[in-house]
This record gives sequence, structure tokens and C-alpha cells, in this order.
Amino acid sequence: MTDRVVARYWIETAFPLADAAATMAGEQSTGTFVRTPGESDELRERHAARVEEVEEIGAVATPSLPGSGLPRSGESVRRAAYVTLSWPIENFGASLPNLLAAVAGNLSELKAFSGLKLLDLQLPPIFLDSYRGPQFGVAGTRRLAEVWDRPLIGTIIKPSVGMSPEATAEQVKLLLSAGVDFIKDDELQADGPHCPFDQRVPAVMRVIRDHAERTGKKVMYAANLTGEIDEMLARHDLVLREGGTCVMASMNAIGLPAMKVLRAHSQLPIHGHRNGWGMLGRSPAIGMSFIAYQKLWRLAGIDHTHVNGIDNKFCETNESVIASARECLTPMFPAPYKGCEVMPVFSSGQSAKQAPASYAALGSADCIYAAGGGILGHPSGPAAGVRALQQAWEAAMAGVPLADAAKEQRELRDALATFGA
Amino acid sequence: MTDRVVARYWIETAFPLADAAATMAGEQSTGTFVRTPGESDELRERHAARVEEVEEIGAVATPSLPGSGLPRSGESVRRAAYVTLSWPIENFGASLPNLLAAVAGNLSELKAFSGLKLLDLQLPPIFLDSYRGPQFGVAGTRRLAEVWDRPLIGTIIKPSVGMSPEATAEQVKLLLSAGVDFIKDDELQADGPHCPFDQRVPAVMRVIRDHAERTGKKVMYAANLTGEIDEMLARHDLVLREGGTCVMASMNAIGLPAMKVLRAHSQLPIHGHRNGWGMLGRSPAIGMSFIAYQKLWRLAGIDHTHVNGIDNKFCETNESVIASARECLTPMFPAPYKGCEVMPVFSSGQSAKQAPASYAALGSADCIYAAGGGILGHPSGPAAGVRALQQAWEAAMAGVPLADAAKEQRELRDALATFGA
Repeated sequence: MTDRVVARYWIETAFPLADAAATMAGEQSTGTFVRTPGESDELRERHAARVEEVEEIGAVATPSLPGSGLPRSGESVRRAAYVTLSWPIENFGASLPNLLAAVAGNLSELKAFSGLKLLDLQLPPIFLDSYRGPQFGVAGTRRLAEVWDRPLIGTIIKPSVGMSPEATAEQVKLLLSAGVDFIKDDELQADGPHCPFDQRVPAVMRVIRDHAERTGKKVMYAANLTGEIDEMLARHDLVLREGGTCVMASMNAIGLPAMKVLRAHSQLPIHGHRNGWGMLGRSPAIGMSFIAYQKLWRLAGIDHTHVNGIDNKFCETNESVIASARECLTPMFPAPYKGCEVMPVFSSGQSAKQAPASYAALGSADCIYAAGGGILGHPSGPAAGVRALQQAWEAAMAGVPLADAAKEQRELRDALATFGA
Repeated sequence: MTDRVVARYWIETAFPLADAAATMAGEQSTGTFVRTPGESDELRERHAARVEEVEEIGAVATPSLPGSGLPRSGESVRRAAYVTLSWPIENFGASLPNLLAAVAGNLSELKAFSGLKLLDLQLPPIFLDSYRGPQFGVAGTRRLAEVWDRPLIGTIIKPSVGMSPEATAEQVKLLLSAGVDFIKDDELQADGPHCPFDQRVPAVMRVIRDHAERTGKKVMYAANLTGEIDEMLARHDLVLREGGTCVMASMNAIGLPAMKVLRAHSQLPIHGHRNGWGMLGRSPAIGMSFIAYQKLWRLAGIDHTHVNGIDNKFCETNESVIASARECLTPMFPAPYKGCEVMPVFSSGQSAKQAPASYAALGSADCIYAAGGGILGHPSGPAAGVRALQQAWEAAMAGVPLADAAKEQRELRDALATFGA
């Protein structure tokens, strides 16, 4: 076990950058403010986090976050920098919860910093001894959904809350008839008293099975089983019994250890929903990038995760969306180790118009492309909405401009007219 | 089940405040951008989140966070406000993971906001049907530690990593002889390969039991069992077998469902470590206040939690530390329901000098007052360090200024001379 964990940060500090980086490394490994008995040089050498690189970005005018301190020198020019630290795996073992304390624990409260964000994480493959990674990933999801050579066209059940199990099943019936490949529960609906999981899933799966019998197409339904651990395992079993092919869990709500338990138990792909990620990832000055975040969850065993979408209705930039989506398909470990690639899910304000940019950005059609209003709001109805999304991706993948494809394809033409081109 | 969940936010937006609040409520309950089939007025009435109050704070010059949008009106004056929303419990049931999706899910990524932070949360007592709250709390912790009428004087094992089980036990022996009431593992040390939990705990408990036999005082040791769920339960059992009286878990690392499982299994107080909280709580513009955060974990079952300390080495203000500490002792539910009070843990750069301010702020001695350098760095050694802390609290509780008490008490006098008064 000589492998090291490497973490890259963005920092902002008025301290000399080398000192600031050394503070980070010390606080997150051997350090305390007073050198204590038992702390030998050899021990420090073996266990201290190491500063691998400090790259200055430049001066900043005002502190991004309040509460930081100034060095005794009185120096008050703040600078931003990228800092890379590494830790010996011996400090915490191949344990994600304990890794977090080191790379994302008290660090972000250190007084020397007016900003500190975890940007990326490289983990040694020994983590694969403890974690299984995705069970299905891209290939397994495609096999279950029986969709090849294009994205899975997905949608969400809306309204989020308020519908009974029967009304939900009716809504699913409509979406099935539209021809979608993938349907997910909203993250706001798991087991509400008016729409209990144990009634919703049988009701929804009945219409999915009926549809499959008639058409030969079993649509993938990500049933939101978020809850306590025993609940989630029982709900997984119900989905399996009902012939379902996917479960969904809100990652931030359940935590990594619960995801590990779910993964070990699951016989179905796990759709990892990132709601709440904005609390961790939205600020440029604090928290954790999605690039680092998704690696933890991929290792823990999710098969899909959300990356927002190009020109989304949220506040994430396209650059960030693209980086996240590409990262999902980038191996976490070199061959012959498992790469743990997962299927990125584009969503939020998506319609036909973003297909070319999404395809160009991803360099692949290995994604779930989810639309809500972009399907249901099509002037010729939901089936035309789905068809338009398929046409848009076919055109994108063939390198044909949407405007050209729309000349021949009415559904696409109407979609572009309705949702913008 | 007619109870409602109430959440209070700080927001920053260029949109009319009433519209912005309505967007929050809509997005987090029934809403989508296009009104969909099946969404009746009655359903909206019953399940829509409700805007309870909007209180304008004032205009802000520049957006706190990037990525927000402007209203179509072209209005570009941004204002900050407090917004209170409520949800019917029927939307998600008494489930903390599913509550989170509503009150702290996609909300913080909404484009209308250049800042959005969850400040407080009021939960209906029906959550007590699902969650047990603290098992020991203040009274149970005092009973096990046999410390009454003053804070538990605590300390931490340092260096954080690098010591073998035997070296750790030696360090504990030193701390025991100093007379502390409470010793905790560092959050960085749970089960590192060079200091496995299964070897550290028996080694540490041996010296604690020896000390108890000699002195009649069994010091409370919060053994950091953070890890996967099966590991944590097994580790708890080991602590119990060894005669230990406390376990510690990093809350952010394990998640609420794992804490619920640990609480259900545990026969010992759970010391909830908040490392990583800075990622959620440090920015004034995003994330979650500790006031809201600690309620979730108290309900899930922790008995102690960290609140930082007065004049701490981190970047938290004293005002925030005090609010957090007081909140830990404030009932979450009115009588006759369980109040779920937990013991606040002061730490980080604490020495004798902060005792009066801590006592004045808390209005109580029901806390763990933890010091590291403030004990080990005392010029007359650790026992004098502990004695000085006790003297400082005795003086504070008696309303005697530290300077006066120090005239009579050498340990306190030396502590104030060393660490500042």
C-alpha cells in the first residue's frame, strides 16, 4: 500500500502560497498547533500530506468568503492558486468516509483561506478492493433498455407531488405511448403518504409490462427508492419482483455508506440523483466540484448520474455541464482496472435544439437525454416530442445541421419552432 | 398528518421578491415549467409549498454567486431577503432523506437566485415517530462520565495520524493522568492501516480501565468508528465489550440513514463530528446554516456535536459559534415531545481564557469543553492544564473574573500567562 491519494484545490489566501499549502497539508494529516509528545520526525515523514504543486493564478481584489485571517507580516494582498496535495493511503485506508475527513473535512474552515474548493481527486486502484463501482454502467443500461447507437430518450414524471399511484400510472402510460426509453420519478416523490412507493411501483410497472407485451419494448423506469436503508433494500426488491429495471436514489440524502449497501444488494442499475449538489458545488469559492464529487459516487456504485444540460434552466454554465458529462465517461482507473464509467444524464430545459451541442461536447451518444416540457409541450403531442428528440440526435450524430434535417422531418421542425433553434 | 415543515432561507435575487419566493415554492413541490396534464388546481392547493413570509433586507451591489439570471423586465437591482416556506408533511412523509430533497435539493441551483441559503428548519413532531433522537443527550452523558455541575473537560488524541495503537494508548495514559473527563479520537483517525480500530480501542480501553480501577473515574473515550455501516456496528460492539462509553462518527461522511442505523443499534452516546460542515455552511450565500443542519442530526440520534469555540482558530465568528451552541440545548419540539437536546462541544484553540465568554453565551455548563494545546501546552504540564480549565469554569460559573481567580490559583494564572487572558 504505497499508493497515494491526490487532491487538487482552488485556494484564495493572503498568506504566502507555500505556507498556505503547508498549512492545508499539516492540518489534514499529522498537524496540530502545538507539537505534541509522540510526534517524531519519522512519523511526520511517513504520514504527513505532501504539497505536490502550487500554481499561482493571480491577485484577487476582495476576499470571496468572510472570516479569513491575515498573516502576521500584515501582508494583505490576496492571491488565488491551484494547490495539489497528496496523502499516503496508509493514513485512512481505502475507505471513502474516512478519505472525506482528509480531503474534504475541516480544511474548508481554515482561517488562512478566504476560499478553498476541492476541484479534483485521484484515487489509487486499491479503492476497488473495497468498492464495487457501477454494476451496469453504460453497456448494462443499454442492454436492459435495449437502446443502441443513440441516447436513451428520457423523461420525468410531473407534477412532482400530488398524484396518486393510479394517476402516476396514467401519466406513465402517456409517456410510454410517446415512445420514451426511460422514465424517472421526480426526486421530490419517493414514498409520500399520498403516493406510497409500494403502491406506485406496482401501478407503474403494470402499465410498463402491458406496454412491453404489446410493443416488445420494456421502458426503463427509475423508481425513486430514497429513504432509510432497510426501506431502500425492500423497495429495490419490490421493483425487481415487479419486473422493473432501474432504481433511483438521491445521493446527498443517503450518503456513501448507504449507497455501498444498496449497491451490494442491488440487481438493478442505480440512478444517482444529485439534488442538493448546488449546496456543495455552486460556489466557486467553497465546496467541491462535480468532477471530484462524482468519482466518490461512481466508486460507491451508481450507474447513472445527472449533469444538468446545455443551456439549462439552472445556473450552471455549459462549460461546467460539458466537463461533468465527459468526466462520467472517463475511466477513473487505468486498465486493467475497472474504469467505473457511468451514464451521464442530461436534463433541465432540454429539447431538440441542444442535441448537436450535447453530442459534440460528449463525443458520444452514451447518455440519457431527458426532457419534460420538451416532450409534453410539443405542438403535435408527446410522441412527436420524442420523435423530434430522436431526429435531432440522429442529425447530430450524422453531422447534419438541425435546420437541414428539419426540412425533411416535421416533428423536428415543429420542435425547433416551438422550443427555439 | 396536517403538520407542515417550515424552512427559512436567505435569498438574493434580481426578480421581484414575491415572484422569487413563488418560484422556490413551486420548484420544490408541484412545479415544472410547463403545466402538465394531471395537474389540477385542487392538487396544487393541497400539495404546493406555501410562501409564509418574505422580508426584504435591502439592495446588494454585486451578485454573491455567478450564474444567476435577470428577469425579462430587464430589472437588474438585486435584493436580499428572508423567505419562509412551508410544505405539507404529506409531500414526503416523516423521512429525513426525502425532506432534504424538498428543503435543500435543486433549490440552490435555481437561476433566479445569486444566493440562497437554508437558515432554519422547523419540523413537526411526527418526525419523532420515525426517528429516535439522542439516546443519552446531556443527562446520559453526564451520568456515564460522572461529571456534574461543570463542563466535561475534553481533549483530542494528537497527532491525528501516524501513531500505532500502543503509542495512542501511551498518549491516552498521559491525558488520563492529567485528569480529563473526555478524550476523543481525531476525525482523521478511524481505522488507518497503521492504527486499526480493532487494535486501537482495546489498547486505549486497557489504560482507561486501569485508570478507572485506580482512581474510580472512567474517562469517556469517543472512539472514531466512522466507516461503512457493517464496520460501524461491529466497531460499536467492540467498544461496548471493552467497557467504552462513547462512539464517534463523522456525520457528513456517513449520511443520515447510516446514522439512523447506528443509533438504533447503539448502546452508547454518539459523538457527532461535523468535519466537512464548512463546505455546506461557511459561505453566507449558499448551503445550510448549522442551526438547520444540527436539527437533522439530532433527530437522527447524535448525543454531542461540535460547535467550534469562542475565538477559534477557524474562520467562524463568535456570534455563529454561540448561536450554534445555544441551539444544541434548545428543544426541537415542545413538551410533552422529546426536545432532542444534545451536548455542544467547544473546541479549536480553546484554553482557560474563553471559559467566561463560553459560559455567558451558553447560559449553562452543559457542554464538553475541549482543548489540545490548551492542556498539553501548560507550562506546568497537562495536569495543571486541566486544572486551569476547571478553575476557569468554576470562576466563570461563580461570576468571579478570571484575573481575580488567578490570584489564588497558580494553574489558572500560568495558563492565562501562557495562552493569553
